[in-house]
Amino acid sequence: VNVQPAIEALLQQERVARLATVDHEGRPHVIPVVFAYERGTVYTPIDAKPKSVAPARLRRVRNIRSNPHVQVLLDHYEEEWAGLWFAQLRGRAELLSGGDRYDEGVRLLEGKYMQYVDLPLRPRPIIAIALQDVRFWSGEQLSAP
Amino acid sequence: VNVQPAIEALLQQERVARLATVDHEGRPHVIPVVFAYERGTVYTPIDAKPKSVAPARLRRVRNIRSNPHVQVLLDHYEEEWAGLWFAQLRGRAELLSGGDRYDEGVRLLEGKYMQYVDLPLRPRPIIAIALQDVRFWSGEQLSAP
Repeated sequence: VNVQPAIEALLQQERVARLATVDHEGRPHVIPVVFAYERGTVYTPIDAKPKSVAPARLRRVRNIRSNPHVQVLLDHYEEEWAGLWFAQLRGRAELLSGGDRYDEGVRLLEGKYMQYVDLPLRPRPIIAIALQDVRFWSGEQLSAP
Repeated sequence: VNVQPAIEALLQQERVARLATVDHEGRPHVIPVVFAYERGTVYTPIDAKPKSVAPARLRRVRNIRSNPHVQVLLDHYEEEWAGLWFAQLRGRAELLSGGDRYDEGVRLLEGKYMQYVDLPLRPRPIIAIALQDVRFWSGEQLSAP
């Protein structure tokens, strides 16, 4: 997919996104996620849960295994609605547990979030989302004449 | 569903939520939404689009018609991850175009968002989501010993 430079800039700057998946019964699931981006791929960890839950039992992981279609949402809210915007990124998710792409994702996440100094990502898996489609909407349309 | 008072307080205070639906091919769709809440029901408008798009053509409307299962996410991000939290609200969505419940939803939305003084909701439909399940997660668990 060709991700426009303006969208790539948002993907670099934004600190939180929302990840939507679908369970095996066709019901949606959505959570806030930290993420990193490079060359058409969004990386997101599966660490933000109590350590007592094994990664394979997390709902987003089970969902991705049965249905790899996901959507990532970046958005901005403010009370002046002309300033609203959102970007919907449709993609295909894959679980990575090791290898070059895993190392790359971990490197990007650790580079973006200093919090991982105290909360190591390894050896937990990460999710890699290959982007397939990007849509952008801006509230400026609301205030147009 | 029995929504705990602490969650009801969040539903009153928060200004933006994310709404996840599923399309007829089983792919997720997620958008930011404004919303109002009362007695187990979340109301959200379908106004925040260019006026040239008919409500029935909006993806979330088509999705809800083919699959009424939705999830509403409230969340908070900050760089101090012990302060993170989110609430996932699973529910059944229905489109309202008139009647007492439509009037109630419009009244609540207009009461919560002054922006609707200049951007009338009527006569566009609204979405009513009857909550079925609520889960709350807090990052305080991350900083526990």
